Amino acid sequence: MYPISVIAFGRLRLEPCQKLQEHYLGMLRTYARMEVVELAEGKGDPARQLKEEAERLRPRLAAVRCPVLLTPEGASRSSESLARWLVERMNRGESLAFVLGSSHGFDPALKKEVPEQLSLSPMTFPHELSRVMFLEQLYRAFTIFRGKEYHK
Amino acid sequence: MYPISVIAFGRLRLEPCQKLQEHYLGMLRTYARMEVVELAEGKGDPARQLKEEAERLRPRLAAVRCPVLLTPEGASRSSESLARWLVERMNRGESLAFVLGSSHGFDPALKKEVPEQLSLSPMTFPHELSRVMFLEQLYRAFTIFRGKEYHK
Repeated sequence: MYPISVIAFGRLRLEPCQKLQEHYLGMLRTYARMEVVELAEGKGDPARQLKEEAERLRPRLAAVRCPVLLTPEGASRSSESLARWLVERMNRGESLAFVLGSSHGFDPALKKEVPEQLSLSPMTFPHELSRVMFLEQLYRAFTIFRGKEYHK
Repeated sequence: MYPISVIAFGRLRLEPCQKLQEHYLGMLRTYARMEVVELAEGKGDPARQLKEEAERLRPRLAAVRCPVLLTPEGASRSSESLARWLVERMNRGESLAFVLGSSHGFDPALKKEVPEQLSLSPMTFPHELSRVMFLEQLYRAFTIFRGKEYHK
């Protein structure tokens, strides 16, 4: 099964978000070998925090062929477009890691280094809800290219 | 306090979504008199279902000054833009109702009758998660124009 990493800064403190993560991960595991890595948020003022988070993230991103940052300025895609994007990468055998930032987002320098960026919405959502939204879209993408009934 | 109706077709079957709805409604009640009306999904094939849902919806929409349908083709707004839109309507004293459709969306005829439409994302989310996402954005909108720390 295809390995997909989800790297997220910050814990899911809201219990229902943890439950929804388990719900979507459980369904995703039919289609992919899912790994969720939760990293602690950096300390200090926002700029310093983001810099420190970027330093811890770089070695992990270097280990995959196609790292993707989830950012509000990233590519805006429909669910069908995300599904096509995903299947192309998987067909090429590219290892994938999707990164969800902390509440301050990502270090500007890191954003310049990672060309592939995806936006879930032009609206700002809390990182806990964003993680659930992303896992749902990933699951939906698999159901779309497998032709399952889930996506209408 | 300002009254805001949220009208939704279909129940929240996922328990964590119910919990998140309660979480955001609890916080929203500091700012607005929230009413959530849950209507049963229509029966039959999709076209018939949507027509029947539209018939039940019309009298409710006629009772408010500014009904808003949440549709994927609706206006794409940032959280700040939604906050500005909301405060304008509230300043004019316009009664508001936001409607979340069933899994098939809305009857095409109804969409033509309701000019105000809002999109949460170009992606398709399940109606249960959309409801939570919308309530979070409504809460965020209030924190934005009240200058609270929640929105960064």
